[in-house]
Amino acid sequence: MYTAVDIITAKRNGLALSKDQITWIVNAYTAGEVSDEQFAALAMAIYFQGLNDAELFALTTAMLHSGTTLDFSGLGKPTADKHSTGGVGDKITLPLTPLVASYGIAVPQLSGRGLGHTGGTLDKLESIPGFEVDLTEDDIRAQLQDPGGVICAATAELAPADKKIYALRDVTATVDSMPLIASSIMSKKLAEGTDTLVLDVKTGSGAFMQREDQARELAEKMVWLGKAHGVATTAVLTRMDAPLGYTVGNAIEVEETLDVLAGGGPADVVELTLTLAKHMLAGAGIEADPAEHLANGKAMDAWRAMVAAQHGDPDAPLPTATHEHTVTAETTGVVSAMDARAVGEAAWRLGAGRQFQGQPVQATAGIRLHAKPGESITAGQPLFTLYTETPEAFDPATQLLETAVEVSDTYTAPEVIIDVIN
Amino acid sequence: MYTAVDIITAKRNGLALSKDQITWIVNAYTAGEVSDEQFAALAMAIYFQGLNDAELFALTTAMLHSGTTLDFSGLGKPTADKHSTGGVGDKITLPLTPLVASYGIAVPQLSGRGLGHTGGTLDKLESIPGFEVDLTEDDIRAQLQDPGGVICAATAELAPADKKIYALRDVTATVDSMPLIASSIMSKKLAEGTDTLVLDVKTGSGAFMQREDQARELAEKMVWLGKAHGVATTAVLTRMDAPLGYTVGNAIEVEETLDVLAGGGPADVVELTLTLAKHMLAGAGIEADPAEHLANGKAMDAWRAMVAAQHGDPDAPLPTATHEHTVTAETTGVVSAMDARAVGEAAWRLGAGRQFQGQPVQATAGIRLHAKPGESITAGQPLFTLYTETPEAFDPATQLLETAVEVSDTYTAPEVIIDVIN
Repeated sequence: MYTAVDIITAKRNGLALSKDQITWIVNAYTAGEVSDEQFAALAMAIYFQGLNDAELFALTTAMLHSGTTLDFSGLGKPTADKHSTGGVGDKITLPLTPLVASYGIAVPQLSGRGLGHTGGTLDKLESIPGFEVDLTEDDIRAQLQDPGGVICAATAELAPADKKIYALRDVTATVDSMPLIASSIMSKKLAEGTDTLVLDVKTGSGAFMQREDQARELAEKMVWLGKAHGVATTAVLTRMDAPLGYTVGNAIEVEETLDVLAGGGPADVVELTLTLAKHMLAGAGIEADPAEHLANGKAMDAWRAMVAAQHGDPDAPLPTATHEHTVTAETTGVVSAMDARAVGEAAWRLGAGRQFQGQPVQATAGIRLHAKPGESITAGQPLFTLYTETPEAFDPATQLLETAVEVSDTYTAPEVIIDVIN
Repeated sequence: MYTAVDIITAKRNGLALSKDQITWIVNAYTAGEVSDEQFAALAMAIYFQGLNDAELFALTTAMLHSGTTLDFSGLGKPTADKHSTGGVGDKITLPLTPLVASYGIAVPQLSGRGLGHTGGTLDKLESIPGFEVDLTEDDIRAQLQDPGGVICAATAELAPADKKIYALRDVTATVDSMPLIASSIMSKKLAEGTDTLVLDVKTGSGAFMQREDQARELAEKMVWLGKAHGVATTAVLTRMDAPLGYTVGNAIEVEETLDVLAGGGPADVVELTLTLAKHMLAGAGIEADPAEHLANGKAMDAWRAMVAAQHGDPDAPLPTATHEHTVTAETTGVVSAMDARAVGEAAWRLGAGRQFQGQPVQATAGIRLHAKPGESITAGQPLFTLYTETPEAFDPATQLLETAVEVSDTYTAPEVIIDVIN
C-alpha cells in the first residue's frame, strides 16, 4: 500500500512516480483521504522537480477519470471543442461556438467563470437577459443535437480532482507549474468527450505563460496528451500582449461578438476566430472556409438559436453602464504597447471581474479601447472609455491604465497567430 | 499587509523573505489564519530554496516567541540544558541530568516522546513505577531549586509554532530540511530560558543527518543561533552508526543508566555523558571532572532525588518482559558493523516505540546487545536478546536484526566523539 509521505518524498528527491502511485494519490486526495497539506507539498515538489511524460500522462488520466466523463458518440455527428489558456478581451468562444456549430458539428463548450484579471466566458454570456449557464447533462445533449452549440458551466461531477487541485494550487503558489497546468486543462477537456480539440495557447505580457518557449512547451505537451488519449488535438500559439478586440468586460464583449457574427468586428478577433474554426472543422473532416458563415449570416442564426435554447433573448438590448469616464491620450503618435494585464486589472477594478469565488460581477462594467498597438492617437482625443456601476472605481482603474500605454513615432503590431502545433 | 501566497511565491522563486514577512506568517499560521496547505507549500519551498542566515534567525526568533518563554534567572543558580538530535539507545539525558545537577546547576530537561525508530526520553522514564512527566511550570521551578534536575514534558504553551510546524512537516515530507530542523530545535530550546546549551548532533547510518558534512553544518548553524540569542552554546558532533550502550528500549535503558550512575556502564555511554557534562559545567563556570560524581555517588543521589520528586520510586524494581527470545551469532569473528537504524526499528516492532502519536508503548520491550562493533562473537552464542509483551513481534524484529550485523576478522570501532563546535 502507498502512503502520501512516501510519494511526496520520492517526488521531492527527484524520483519518477509510478502510474499506480499517481492514480492512488489523486483518488485518495479527491476522496479526502490524503490531506490538503500533503497534496500542497506534493504540488510544490512537482513545481521544482517536474514530471516526465509517463507521470504527466498518468496524472492527466487519473484526474480525467476522477468523476463522470461525457460521451457524445450517440449524437450521430462529430464533436469539436476549444480551450484557451486565457487572455484579456478573449471573447473568442462566443462567436466561435455558433460558427462551428453552423457546419453541423456539436460544440460542447463547458466553460468557467473569471477570477482575477482575465474575464470569464460565463460572466460575459450572463449579461444577455435571461441567459442560463447551469444546464443538466440531458440539456447539454439535447442542445448539441440542435442547434449544435452550447456554452455552459462544467458540472461538478466532471473531473472533480481537477477542481480540488486547482483550488489548492490557487492558494499555495503552485499554479504556474507546466505539468500541473497541462494536466488540469487536458483532464477537464478530455472528460468532455470530444473528438476534436483545438487549444489556444497564449503567450506575452497579458498571458499566463509570458515566455514563448514555455507556452510552446505547454502546447506541445497538451497536443501529445490529447492525441495519446485518442483525441485529434491542435494547438494554436497566439500572442497576448495587448487585449483582443476593442472591448474588455462583459456586455461590451457580447456587443463585439455580435459585430463579428454580423460579418464585421475587429481584425484580430475575426482572424483568431477563423483560425480556430478552421482547425475544428478540419478535425471533423470538413474542408470549408468558415468566413463564409460569418458573411452569409449562418453563424448569427446559430448564435441566436443557441441563446434562445439557453433561455436568453437574442433581441433584448444589452445592459449599459450608469457611469462612464473617458481617458484621453496625452501625446500624439502611434500606440506601440498596451499592457493587456493592466487593462484586464483595470476592468476587474471597475467590477467586470471578481475578487473571490461566488462574488457577483457587473454585467455593464468594462473598458472600450479607442486605439490598439499600431494605430494612431491624437493628444486630447479619447483613448479609453471606462464603464461601471461603482464610479469610485474610476480612480484606481485610471491609474492602472496610465502606465498601460506606450506611444512611438511608428509601430507595426505583430501577428496574433504565432504558430500551429499538431 | 502580507499574504501567504505572496510569501510562498517569493520563497519558491528563491527570494529572501524579510524579518517582518517571516514573523507575520509564523504568527498567522500559529493563529490558524494561514492554512496548513499554505504552510506546507512554504515548507517545501524552503526545502528546495533554503534560508539565509537572516531568514533563519528571524524564523527561529518568531517560533521562540510564538508562546510563553521560561525565565529561570530568579533561581540564583546557573542553568544548563542539553539537546540530542536523536539516536538509537540514546539514554544520555537520564544519567547526564542528575550528574550536572549534582554540581549545583539547574538542569531543565524538557523532552519529547518517541516516534519511529528512535526512543523517547519520557517513555524510558515512565517505565519507573510512579514516575510523572507532566509537570506545571511551578513544579519545574521548585524542582530546579531542589534537587536541581528535572526531566519532563514540554508544556503546550512553549513554542506552539514549533509544535504545529513539526506536526505538519512530519506528514508532508519536509522534515529533513536543515533550516527547518535548526529553527525547530533552537526555538524550543531557547524558549526554555537556559544560560548554557550543549547540543549532541549525531551523524551516521542511525542518525537523522547521515552525512557528516550536513551534521556539521547543522551544528554550526545551531551554535550560531544560540549565541546570537545570548546563550552559551556548544555542539558535540558524535557518531551514530551503532546503538549507544548495550540496551535499546525503555526499562532496560533505565537499567543501564543505573549502571552508569553507579560508576560502571558501557564505555561509549560513559564517555558521551562525561563529555556533554564537561561542556555544561564549563558553560556554568565550573571547572571539575564530572567523573568524580559518578565515582562518589553524588550523581546517583541526585538521580534518586529527581525520581522521588517526580513521584517515582527509586527503589522499586523495574518491570521485566513476559517474553524473551535470543538471537545467536551465525559466525565467529569481530563485529564490524551493527546498523543502529535496524536495531531501532526492531525495538520499535517489539513495542518499545509507537506508530502514531498517543499510542502507548511497552515499558518492558527492547533489545539487549551482547556485542558491539569491535567486540568478538562466537557462532552459536547469544548476539541479541529480544524482550516484548507481544511475542508475535519476534519474527519481524528478528528479520530486521539479521541484516543489521556484519562480522570481520578484525575491526576497531571509531571514537564516538568526532568534534566539538563552539
